Amino acid sequence: MEGYEKMSPIEIRKLISEQVITGPTAGMSKGFTQANLVILKKEHAYDFLLFCQRNPKSCPLLDVTELGSFTPNKIATGANILTDVPKYRIYKKGVYTAEVLDATAYWEEDMVCFLLGCSFTFETPLLAAGIPIRHIEEKCNVPMYKTMIACEKAGVFEGPMVVSMRPMTYEDAIRAVQITTRFPDVHGAPIHIGDPSQIGITDIDKPDFGDSVTIKDGEIPVFWPCGVTPQAVAMQSKPSIMITHAPGCMFISDIKDTALSVL
Amino acid sequence: MEGYEKMSPIEIRKLISEQVITGPTAGMSKGFTQANLVILKKEHAYDFLLFCQRNPKSCPLLDVTELGSFTPNKIATGANILTDVPKYRIYKKGVYTAEVLDATAYWEEDMVCFLLGCSFTFETPLLAAGIPIRHIEEKCNVPMYKTMIACEKAGVFEGPMVVSMRPMTYEDAIRAVQITTRFPDVHGAPIHIGDPSQIGITDIDKPDFGDSVTIKDGEIPVFWPCGVTPQAVAMQSKPSIMITHAPGCMFISDIKDTALSVL
Repeated sequence: MEGYEKMSPIEIRKLISEQVITGPTAGMSKGFTQANLVILKKEHAYDFLLFCQRNPKSCPLLDVTELGSFTPNKIATGANILTDVPKYRIYKKGVYTAEVLDATAYWEEDMVCFLLGCSFTFETPLLAAGIPIRHIEEKCNVPMYKTMIACEKAGVFEGPMVVSMRPMTYEDAIRAVQITTRFPDVHGAPIHIGDPSQIGITDIDKPDFGDSVTIKDGEIPVFWPCGVTPQAVAMQSKPSIMITHAPGCMFISDIKDTALSVL
Repeated sequence: MEGYEKMSPIEIRKLISEQVITGPTAGMSKGFTQANLVILKKEHAYDFLLFCQRNPKSCPLLDVTELGSFTPNKIATGANILTDVPKYRIYKKGVYTAEVLDATAYWEEDMVCFLLGCSFTFETPLLAAGIPIRHIEEKCNVPMYKTMIACEKAGVFEGPMVVSMRPMTYEDAIRAVQITTRFPDVHGAPIHIGDPSQIGITDIDKPDFGDSVTIKDGEIPVFWPCGVTPQAVAMQSKPSIMITHAPGCMFISDIKDTALSVL
């Protein structure tokens, strides 16, 4: 992992396309924005674009490709979104049917790719502020949970918000609110702090996606809206086909984290 | 104007629908968010939604109605967008063909309404910070200019960014950057300060929309992206029909300005 942290996005994407890297990307190409991926057929593109507009905290859009293009030119010129993500999930009619390292075989000419901001982006400024990130310390995937917070419906798309969780001290939680508020394009401020049951999480040690992490004495869990939300939504909304990244296995763009800060 | 400042959005909208108010709305229902309006047929809705996503500074979306609905329920439950704006402009194939007080006659069943954030929203916190707003002082419309800044294309939609201008002292300009940065959903920070020619404005006394205002000695012009941008874009992109508000004559929502601040 240590070597990956200092590598450029284009170098990391090459290793991913060669299937040398096949797992979670947190901490890689430090300082560059990572993105969630959703690929849909044209017939669902308007509804999904509207869904993102209505749910900007969980689905902040960084880039939308032209119809039939798998190159996200706004955030990574020349990249191939079908090979440059470590792991993909295929959902057919709402059912998670396969996890693959290359999505090329599932591509159709009338598809559109949506790249959504990822909370890994604000981990760089959190670390810079001296706030430890547990899943990076424990070298595992960030824990993610389905909540009882309902997203705002748009066309066929509806479902629960998914959140990512980082445990931290009470003092660090306050600082983390300040820091992440500056990044509305990558989920912004936390959606909840402190009591998982208030947002419908019954067992903090059993995340729905990713890995469980240690919560130490004197720490509270801090929850951010998560770009895995479209996957929970796909299960409920059942589009004919939807290709996504696997949770935690993100697309690494050429955009610097600092370029996304409003302050 | 003074009485209108303290009236609620629902009271103002009633006076507008009765055609008692037929002009610019700056300063009315102080503290409530005003919105730009774009109405398009379904065939252009995806392209326009994508245009807004790609040009969030000039086209920050506050609400999108369901297909065939003229009620913007997210920002003003029960309002009628076809009567509750003081003045509308009708563009047919890119040509500005009519200005009307009621848009009902132009409504078609397959239309979608887009409500975009308006810079009038951040005038309240600017005033609260002691920064005078010249077009409110001079009881006229804010000056707006077409620039040479190209918007990012999406489908059929392309064209120049339109900006609004407020003259202020150098010290106030710095404070205005800080204050408006907190409001990314209503255009956010200025796009330019100081030299109109740098963004393609040849005569500051001849705005393309709205009225000219006095720039006093010791003041500089400060420019914000403007929600009239879609009208300049419509002229260039020529959708079959597009209904918009008339510049400065906004839709007044039930959302408080303070609710749109990220800080």
